[in-house]
Order: sequence, then C-alpha cells, then structure tokens
Amino acid sequence: MSVENKYSVLFEPVKIGPVTARNRFYQVPHCNGMGHQRPQAEAAMRGIKAEGGWAVVSNQETEIHPTSDLTPFAEGRLWDARDIPGLRLMTDAVHEKGSLAAVELVHNGSHSQNLYSRAPILAPSDYSVDGALPKQARMMDKEDIRNLRRWHREAAIRARDAGFDVIYVYAGHNMTLAQHFMLPHMNQRMDEYGGSLENRLRLTRELLEETREAVGDTCGVAFRFAVDEMLGSDGMQAREEGRAVVELLAELPDLWDVNVSEWANDSMTTRFQPQDGYQNDYISFVKQVTTKPVVGVGRITSPDMMVSMVTKGIVDFIGAARPSIADPFLPNKIQQGRVDEIRECIGCNICVAADSQIAPIRCTQNPTMGEEWRRGWHPEIISPKISEAEVLVVGAGPAGLECAMQLARRGYDVTLAEASSEAGGRVAAESALPGLGAWKRVVDYRMNDLTQRANARLFMQSQLSADDVLELGIPHVFLATGTHWRADGIGRATHRTPPVLDGSVQVFSAEDIMAGQGPQTGPVLIYDDDHGYIAGVLAEKLAAQGLSVIFATPETMVSHFTHLTLEQHRVQARLIDMGVDLRLSQVLGGIADGQVQLNCAYTGRSHSVPCAAAVLVSERVRETALHEALKGQGLSTLDLIGDAANPGFIADAVFAGHLAARSFERDPAAIEADWFRRETPSLHSQGG
Amino acid sequence: MSVENKYSVLFEPVKIGPVTARNRFYQVPHCNGMGHQRPQAEAAMRGIKAEGGWAVVSNQETEIHPTSDLTPFAEGRLWDARDIPGLRLMTDAVHEKGSLAAVELVHNGSHSQNLYSRAPILAPSDYSVDGALPKQARMMDKEDIRNLRRWHREAAIRARDAGFDVIYVYAGHNMTLAQHFMLPHMNQRMDEYGGSLENRLRLTRELLEETREAVGDTCGVAFRFAVDEMLGSDGMQAREEGRAVVELLAELPDLWDVNVSEWANDSMTTRFQPQDGYQNDYISFVKQVTTKPVVGVGRITSPDMMVSMVTKGIVDFIGAARPSIADPFLPNKIQQGRVDEIRECIGCNICVAADSQIAPIRCTQNPTMGEEWRRGWHPEIISPKISEAEVLVVGAGPAGLECAMQLARRGYDVTLAEASSEAGGRVAAESALPGLGAWKRVVDYRMNDLTQRANARLFMQSQLSADDVLELGIPHVFLATGTHWRADGIGRATHRTPPVLDGSVQVFSAEDIMAGQGPQTGPVLIYDDDHGYIAGVLAEKLAAQGLSVIFATPETMVSHFTHLTLEQHRVQARLIDMGVDLRLSQVLGGIADGQVQLNCAYTGRSHSVPCAAAVLVSERVRETALHEALKGQGLSTLDLIGDAANPGFIADAVFAGHLAARSFERDPAAIEADWFRRETPSLHSQGG
Repeated sequence: MSVENKYSVLFEPVKIGPVTARNRFYQVPHCNGMGHQRPQAEAAMRGIKAEGGWAVVSNQETEIHPTSDLTPFAEGRLWDARDIPGLRLMTDAVHEKGSLAAVELVHNGSHSQNLYSRAPILAPSDYSVDGALPKQARMMDKEDIRNLRRWHREAAIRARDAGFDVIYVYAGHNMTLAQHFMLPHMNQRMDEYGGSLENRLRLTRELLEETREAVGDTCGVAFRFAVDEMLGSDGMQAREEGRAVVELLAELPDLWDVNVSEWANDSMTTRFQPQDGYQNDYISFVKQVTTKPVVGVGRITSPDMMVSMVTKGIVDFIGAARPSIADPFLPNKIQQGRVDEIRECIGCNICVAADSQIAPIRCTQNPTMGEEWRRGWHPEIISPKISEAEVLVVGAGPAGLECAMQLARRGYDVTLAEASSEAGGRVAAESALPGLGAWKRVVDYRMNDLTQRANARLFMQSQLSADDVLELGIPHVFLATGTHWRADGIGRATHRTPPVLDGSVQVFSAEDIMAGQGPQTGPVLIYDDDHGYIAGVLAEKLAAQGLSVIFATPETMVSHFTHLTLEQHRVQARLIDMGVDLRLSQVLGGIADGQVQLNCAYTGRSHSVPCAAAVLVSERVRETALHEALKGQGLSTLDLIGDAANPGFIADAVFAGHLAARSFERDPAAIEADWFRRETPSLHSQGG
Repeated sequence: MSVENKYSVLFEPVKIGPVTARNRFYQVPHCNGMGHQRPQAEAAMRGIKAEGGWAVVSNQETEIHPTSDLTPFAEGRLWDARDIPGLRLMTDAVHEKGSLAAVELVHNGSHSQNLYSRAPILAPSDYSVDGALPKQARMMDKEDIRNLRRWHREAAIRARDAGFDVIYVYAGHNMTLAQHFMLPHMNQRMDEYGGSLENRLRLTRELLEETREAVGDTCGVAFRFAVDEMLGSDGMQAREEGRAVVELLAELPDLWDVNVSEWANDSMTTRFQPQDGYQNDYISFVKQVTTKPVVGVGRITSPDMMVSMVTKGIVDFIGAARPSIADPFLPNKIQQGRVDEIRECIGCNICVAADSQIAPIRCTQNPTMGEEWRRGWHPEIISPKISEAEVLVVGAGPAGLECAMQLARRGYDVTLAEASSEAGGRVAAESALPGLGAWKRVVDYRMNDLTQRANARLFMQSQLSADDVLELGIPHVFLATGTHWRADGIGRATHRTPPVLDGSVQVFSAEDIMAGQGPQTGPVLIYDDDHGYIAGVLAEKLAAQGLSVIFATPETMVSHFTHLTLEQHRVQARLIDMGVDLRLSQVLGGIADGQVQLNCAYTGRSHSVPCAAAVLVSERVRETALHEALKGQGLSTLDLIGDAANPGFIADAVFAGHLAARSFERDPAAIEADWFRRETPSLHSQGG
C-alpha cells in the first residue's frame, strides 16, 4: 500500500490520541436516513466507505438518552445497552476493512422534540423548541446538568463497548446542547454555566474531560465544533468567540473536527456556494492554536486541493461527508492514481433530502449509495456479463448514460443512441441554468468512462424511429427517452379545473426557457406547480436578463422541495432580492386579455395581474411513443427506464439506469425479491 | 352480558358475512403512529379496545406491496409473509378479548411516494404524486392492473393467515388507488377501466370479488368508501355518483363502511364542525340501497344518538375512531349503565397530529392512549395506594386535575387547591374561545369524577403561598401552577434580536384577550411566534368583535401546527374571510410611534404597518415561584408537573399529571426504566 505519487502526503498515518488513522481521509459524521431504524443498512454502507479507503468512518449524531429523542428521524441511538448490538454491526464492518470507527454522541437539547419518549425537553434557558411546534424546552437545573454529564459518560462507555475507536463530543449545527450552552442568546443563565465564555464553555469542558476519563485510554476523543455561525455579529464568529473557544480548549480533545454552523451553512449546495473548500477561510486558524490534529470539510473533491490544505497547514485530515457519498472509493482512487475515475459530488443535497424524508440516503452521482445492504450493490463492482448479448440504449440522459456505462462495464456490447448533438439529456439542459453548473459532472463522469470503452459505441444526433431500432437488429433495447414539460398549467392544483388560456399572451414551456427561447419582454408570469428547483431557477434566469418576473405558486413558499436540500430560504431570498414579485398560495385560474387570473389556494378568491408572457411549470409528459411502437415487435428486451417511465429526480433516473443494467439477464425472481428487502422490528424487544 | 337498559339495541350481535360481531360497536380503521414500526405497541393498544367492548377492532391502512410504500409513516404493512407475525400480535390481542380483528388493505397509488422502496409510483393516469414533491406517478398498464389484483388477493390471504376476521377493500380519503380509479379527474383512461362509472368501478369490483373468492369463506369482506368529497360539483357527491357506486356494488361486500373524503373532511375538529354525527346527512341513503350492514362515523359519543342512528335505520354499526381513542371502554360503560363515566372525545385531533409526526398516538382526554405497551397503562385501571399518605395538588388545570383524580382513584387522600374561582386552568380559558367549547370536556370529565370521591377535597379561590402549603402539613406536594404568556414578542425568531417596543401602542398578552381585557379599537396587530392554534383563535375572536386585525408571523402560514390537526387550510381561510390582513414570513422588529415594524424572514427587509394595539403571542413563562419557595423545606414529595415544568399541549399536561399520579410511591428505578422502553429492529431480518 505504499504510495509513490504526488498525493503521498494524503496517505500518511495520523494519531488521534491512543488510536492511529492509516491515512488522512476522514469521513466526518453524516446522517443517512438509516441509523437506529436500519442498522444493517447503515453497517453495510459504512463498511463500503472503509473499503474505499477512508481511514476514519464516523456514524452520525447518536442520541445518548430519551431526553434527546429525535423521533421520527433515523439517526443513531445509544440510549442503553440494547443499542450496542446494532452499532456493533457497523464497527465490525469498518474494522474489517482496516479503518477506525467514530461515533458522534449527542444531546440535542431543544433541537429534539422527544416525540416518542415524551420526556422533558432540556435547554440552558427556557425557550421554544426548534421548528414550528408550540412547545418549550425548560432550563436545566444543576441536577439536570449532573445527569447529562452522567448520561454522556455512560454513553461513551457503551460506545467503546460497541467497538468505536473515536468518540465525539458534539457542539455544532446549532443542534446540540453543548453548543446551545455556548451561545449567549440561548444561555441566559446566572450560575457558573452562564455569563462569561468560560462559564458557557464549562459544560463542554466537562463533557470532554469526562469522556477522556471514561474511555480516553483506548479511544480518541474528538470534538466537533462550529467555529462560526455565519451571522456576523449576531452570532458566534471565527475571529472572535469561535477562536476563543479553540484557545480555551486547545489541547483537551484528541482531535478537532471544525466547521461552520448551521447545517445549511455547513452543507451548502453548489447552487449557492460553487467553491469547493469554502470553509477554509473560517477554519484555517485552528491549527495555529492547537497541536492536535484538525479535520476540515467543504465539499472537497480535488486531490490537489487536498494536498494543498495539508501542506499549507490548514488541516491534518481531509474531512468529507458528501464527497464520500458520491464516491466511497475516493481515497483508493487517489492512492492508485485513478483520479479521473472519481465520481465528484455535484453538491445537489439530494442526500440531505433523503435523511429529512427519513428514507435511506440517495446520491445523484452514486446510485449504489443506500443500496449496499438492500440490494447488495457495490459502487465499484458489478457482475460481469453472462452472455454475448448486444444491447441498445436509446437516450443519453442520466438514465441512459448510467445504463449504457454499467452494461459496458459488465462487458456487454453496447450501442447508445442520442437524438441531440449533446450528451446529458435533462442534465445538459439544467446544468446550463444559473447555479447548476456542477451538475454537469453527472454527464462528464459517465462520458469519460464510456468513451474509453471499446465495447461501447455512442451515436449522437441519432433520433431513432421504431423501424430504425428494428433495422439495427439488436435484440435488447433500453429506452431512456425522457420527458418534456407540459405548458398548459395542468398540475396538482388544477386537475379538477384546468386553467383557461385564451392565447392573449405567449406561453412558454420550461424547455423553451432552458433553450434560450424565452420571452423578450415582461412582465413574465412563472407559475410553479412542480415545487422542485426548476421554476425557481427559471425565474432567476429571466430576472437576471432584466425581465420583470411574477412568480406564482399554490404552495406557501417558492420551490417548496428545496427546503429538504437546505436551500429554500436562499432561493426565496434571491428571488426577492432580484425584484421578483411573489404570489404565494395562488392557483392558476387562467390567462385572458393579457391578465393572469390567480385564485387564492385557501378561499378561491381571484385576483388578476397583467403579464406579457407566461412560463407554466407543472408536470412533465413522458416520451413513450417509441416504446409503444416497439411493443410486440419481437424484441427480446424492451425496457422503458428513467423519467420516461417514472418522472422524478436526476438521482432517480441514474438509479433506474443502474438498476436496469444490474437486472439485465438476471433471474427475475431475484430481481423481484429485492423490492421487498427491508429491516423489521424485533417482536421480542423489551423495556426495563 | 345480557343488557337490560335503554341501550340494549346497541348490544345486539350483527353478522358480517361468515363472522359475527358481538355488538354494534365498531372501531373503524385509524392510524396511530405505531403500525409496522411498533407492532407490539399497536397490538397492546388494539387489545385494550377489544377489552373495552368494541366488537370489531380494525388496524389501519395496511400496505400490500412495495409500490405502496408510505415511508416514513408508521402505517400497517403486509408486503409479504414476514409481516404476518407482527400483525398476529394484534389479532391475538383482539381475539383474546372476544372481538373481531379487521385489516384495512390498501394500495395508495400516487398517495405513496415509495421513498424506501424506490418502486414505480402507480396511478390510473399520469400525474403528480400527492404533496409538494416534484415526482410523478405513471399510468398503470393492463399488466400493472393484473399485478395489483394479484397483490391484493395475496395480501388478503396473508391477512387471513395473520388471524384477521374482516378484510377491507379501501376506497376513501382520496388516498387509495381504488378511489383514484373512480374519480374522473384522476382517471382519464380510454380503456375498460376508464370512462363510464361502471368502467371506473371495474377495479374496485374486481378487488371485492377476488377478496371474497380468496378469503370470503372464513372472513367478512368490508368496503370502506367515501360517498362524498365535499367539493360540490367539483367532486364525487353522495346524491350523484356516490349513490350510484353503492347501487352498483350494493351486495358485493359483506359490510359497507362509509364516510366522506378527504381525511380532513372525515376527521373534522370540533372547532370547524361542532356537531357530533355530522356525516349522517351524507351516508343515510346507504342502508336504503344495500341489505348489508353499514358502519358510519362522525365523532359519535352520545349513547342516545347511537340508539337513534340504529333505530332510524341509518347504520347497523356505530363506527368510531376518535371516540374509541378518548375512551376505549365506551361500549362497556354504556352496557353497564355508566354513561356519565365516558371520556368524550373533544375533537382536537392531537391524535392525528401524532400519527403525522410518526410518533405513537396521543389523546388529550385519555393519557393512557399510546402507552399501553410502553408503560403498561390501562385506561380504567390504576394500581391502588400503597400507603396512607396524604397528597396536596396545587392548581386545577389539566395536569393538576388529572393528577388529583388519579391519586384519588388510587385511594390516596387528596387535597386540590385552585387559585381561581373556576377549575380548568388554561382549558377553562381556552374553551371559552371561538370554536373550542368542546375542550371543556377535559375539565367536566375530571370534575365529575373528583367531586364524587369522598377522599378528594377541592378548594377554589385558594391561592397558596409557600407558608400556606407548609402549614397544611401535607408532606406530598404536586405543583401544577401552569404558565402565563409573555407579551414582549420574544420567541424563536427574536431571541437574538429582541423587538423594541416604545410603548406608543398598548400591548396585550394572550391572557388579556382570553379574559376579555383586549383592545377596544384597531387596527390590532397579532404577532404569532408560537404557531399553535392560540394566536389564530385570538385573531378570530378580535375580528369577530369588529376590530381590524393584522396577523403577522415568521412562518409561511397561519397557525402552522394546525396542518397536523387537519385544520390549517380552514384556519387561514376563515381569517381571510373575516378580513384579517395576513403578513406572512415576517419577524417582529418592534413597535414605534404607532407603527409596527416587520422584517422579512427571508431578506430582513423592513416594512411598517400602523396599529393601535398589539397582541404578542410568542412563548410562555413557567410559574415556578411556589416551587422555588418550597425547595429545601422538608417536604417528602415536591413535584413540578404539567406546563409549569414543560410548556406543551393540553395533552402533554394531562399526560404529566397522569404520570405523576402513577409514579407516586413507585420504585424510582422502575419509573426510570419506562423512559427507555421501545421497539428496536431485528438484526436478523432478511430480504429475498
């Protein structure tokens, strides 16, 4: 495993207290929608990370007690010894591949709502819980604080017993009691835990000391700390108290895992933060203050940047959550000099959305993510072909590209036909929109792979009719023909009463705008009944062209889905800042005489707004004509995949392409059985 | 068990195909936040219903296949044989108490998002999934329909094998494929499954026939059907196609379980539908069309209304979800002539909220609901006293009343002291607000019980100081002293930057308005950073007084929490209809010179609105002075409970009072252990 390339520095071992990481690749804690609800799935996923070369593989925030109950979310749990066997699955999987396993112990204070446990919600002072729930946390008294310290100490011991090598104290993302105690607006105590920074730090100091006392002989004690809230003088700042915290606790932990707060700032999408390594300005002081190793993050996927961060003394470890999701084998690929094979994170945060939906993690770039246990998928290994069958894939969008690439990897002879002159389908179009440029990586990764394979042929500008397909004589056909956006305003809110469009203003589809064929004069109405990112991005594009834009939607906010990708507040702020006229909770009634009629989603009351053009974004129409024409024509395989079968996210299309490639010539009963694979509750679990 | 009272008709047995219900009390399917995630908890809860006299106890919607995956919600699941043992726990528990167990099989079509399974989302036609998720269902082809029928038939057989006696086909709540096929705006098919009503009913007819074929020899086949969408001519109407459906399928099922759609119409709160039995007008035709037994619902808690509904020929069974939650022993109490002991449902829908939060069901009236397995609580049984200890409870709000009542039931000598002249605390005040009158039942039930007990003494207008308490010489003291609303506008959104109030307009607290001490002239600003029901109700009250009202909140909607109680759309519509000026996504900056300054929650941009008065509803202050004064005074028990300890819902306060009463003189280790009791995943579950 010796490394003789320019990235050698990344493969030096680093000590974390009593344990040693074999290299500098550190998968920081990240949620994944599995946790205590799906421990077998989580163990398999983390094991793949270790196999891919991450020297430290962390789990995620792990509740230490019923007063920190994040129900219904699927995070880690270590309330008592009954949680040890589930976590042991993960530490075993990580150890088996030679890596260290880290656990992020947490008490979430007022960030937890204790919906299952119904236990008191704890906080440094009295105030409301997080989120729009009309409940309050109560100020902890001295006994509560003593209890908390005991719970944390006991959880650390359980964590060690579960096999963890690194044990966290967690003060970040505005989600943890340790951090809540630090922040003056949350800590208004008059006792020795409030007031001065030293007092506000007292709890964290105690947790660190007591964790070391309890397990420090065999485990590294890590401290995850948000050095800056990115609120200027309204919050903690890296140049003020953030630095002071590091100074006061400098040598206490065995490792500093530093980032910015809150979660939406730590995990910025490329749409709002295109720069990889964007946290360096905030965290670079840390290594100057402590001799302990430092982990930093910031969607770092470039090996050159990694080397530079280490050699410049910004970090000791390259921390990663999202880059390790997009490519669990990133370290190994660097070590083996295969950097062009890295599947780079596109920064879309569909991974975050899955966790928030309490579903197993997904990734746009890596369709095997979250499927390691359920389907036994490996990101780098796919079973070889079992025949000499030839395969045709129609459509080089995300589903078609993935399907063709994986079939080619299996060794099949693959022909990929694309109607347009550019590969990528919807990804090509969408990645040309403001802020979405990084999404092109979905195409680049696959094209780079495909074009190097002798058994794959790509034909551009090759719109195929059914006759064309049959003439090719290839018996196995996958159709990834995609969708187009309808432009009649029919969608969720208008299926019962379709909008009436009198033709008085020109109506454009989403594709028209993406193709630059949009209106030249405003005001332009953009109507969104899709609620993904697309209508909001189109509004941004048109507003940036100087057009006056009205954005109407039946939802109470712009681009509703983007709250799950941690962007919604930024999307809406940007549109407001660009002068877009927002008409929320409004259903499209119709357009007549140059006026759009909007009906209040609550009362049905109408109002009208003049507009010169309209872009109606509601639903998509599946392109199924070729599929229909080929039915019953004697093809051995005829499989409609991706958006053409089920319009969804790009991640869904990539997944569908991958699944089709894996399923090709596989036993249908085995394929069917995979849909049913799941974790179920023990019927023998006990309390007390 | 013979019945010789005026309710005898309710206790006649009724046949459901091959099985016989022992009486007319029928717990219709209802969600509960347990389901396949918490099968032991669900079994215990359903068993209690059977014990309480419900002749039929249903589970809840039960997914039949991975294409109907309601992840993350905790509904029923019967994808394959691995789900049978979990459901068997429930049927055993129900049978043990002599009742029939019913299962509500479902395919949710586009109401499911298949977040775990990632399977295709199915629908009669192409359209968007439910909710603001940018994904679409795809039109089922003939093979899909054949598959669906097979899945349903196989699920029915599994259900029988799990021990169910009654098996549902479900076409209601706008949540199921069978109903989606019926509705013209969702079914635009051109084949024999679309077009005429007979065609749109074809799928349902097949499901009913095939369920009977599969299991009809031993199980009753029930059909749950929404006769009216309550949309007038925009939807299905009971007097038109709703009736036609019943006519076309009249004798096909063994039982008709009829209601109105969607869920928010079926499960109306008392706030928006105060009339019990409110569905009778819609469903009364059904029995004229079919000879099969009919179940109807509508929050029916009055035994006299029940008798009248049966004798008038409206229903054969008294259906109930919420009334059976508030009082699982409702049938037995009627049978035993103890009708004054019924805990009547208050129609607050906190039960619904729990399911939507994916937490075990809660009930304001019945604090044991959802705790049958976890804490072993029984709604009618509490362990008797273990000493002759005397107990003082201070405060006759929901926590104090419940605590005092349960301690008295245990046999302790209880003194309850209330400062005001009326029992009920916050419930007394809130139930006087528009629409909340039924909430008074929380007080009435408890006062009725308490005042009949010789070992309980209630002292009104008895504000106790610490000295007063100590002079009483009662060694065990529970303090349920409640909270008061702060009126400085400090809350979630303003903790970092408190609002500046210059005193130029009078500021009122929520209590001021409840006490009728509000402003006489407008415009009145109501600022809501609580997001429960209270600020919205106060706005309604002031607007009804003829005042001009401005409602501002940092949230994107009025009374955000009420979307979980299925009311939010009605709350907001009512305020708009009353002319309230809504300022959404606005944070309170301050009030100066008769102008309120509101800052955009997205951008911080300010705007001002003139106002003559303000009501600031943000957080509550716990009343802890008496608790503080009594600390260290040698009392054997000093326990702060309810809102005074943890401000939350009325349901939380009742729960806290109940818990305190159960915990009194109980082994502390056993009390502690209860907090940890939970169901955990099997580490050995397999796929394939």
